[in-house]
Amino acid sequence: MSDWLDAISWDEQGLVPVIAQDAASGDVLMFAWMNREALALTVERGEAVYWSRSRRKLWHKGEESGHTQKVRDIRLDCDKDVVLLRIEQTGGIACHTGRRSCFFNQLRDGDRWVAADPVIKNPAEIYK
Amino acid sequence: MSDWLDAISWDEQGLVPVIAQDAASGDVLMFAWMNREALALTVERGEAVYWSRSRRKLWHKGEESGHTQKVRDIRLDCDKDVVLLRIEQTGGIACHTGRRSCFFNQLRDGDRWVAADPVIKNPAEIYK
Repeated sequence: MSDWLDAISWDEQGLVPVIAQDAASGDVLMFAWMNREALALTVERGEAVYWSRSRRKLWHKGEESGHTQKVRDIRLDCDKDVVLLRIEQTGGIACHTGRRSCFFNQLRDGDRWVAADPVIKNPAEIYK
Repeated sequence: MSDWLDAISWDEQGLVPVIAQDAASGDVLMFAWMNREALALTVERGEAVYWSRSRRKLWHKGEESGHTQKVRDIRLDCDKDVVLLRIEQTGGIACHTGRRSCFFNQLRDGDRWVAADPVIKNPAEIYK
């Protein structure tokens, strides 16, 4: 029953990189990792569950912030070692900085990073 | 002059994961890795240069297929350890299977992967 999980080329730590994309706008919102359990739970619940490498535990996205991610489509790449989730982002905020997307630093003039997207909600308000 | 490169949290192999997104459609096309030299070259040339982990060498995307990627925007995430390229995909084909995107395997009914996107060009025609 877990053939679809066995089809994935998990890395030496048993993880796979995951890209979360807004299903409506197409914006790339964040990047994280999953282990088998995280991906199985994501499918079961229909909400993104990642593996936090720093905390070494499962991380139900939005468990603190309320910014859960409803999964609309799950894709696997040609090498079967990267997952793409197309999601509906609750609250419109995926980033812990209170921005819509984690990819807010833009390279300008090929030599500096500029925070190019606005903070929608103060993180102190999100994680209280 | 390479402060912007030092700002990146390179992993223990000196690499950073890179997501390539179609700048026009928003489609996620592929996922690869870069080292410092690859990212510096990408900025210098305005075309994506990756680090091939399997071949252990720089890989100017499209060097064999002609399917180069013109870089329109470079983003770095909140943790400074993932890069997002917004690109213009020459030939409209990013995948070595001849498909537009590498993420063509779709999870159906939560238990099987189905190749959901068409092959645009026969790989034998691309890599001859």
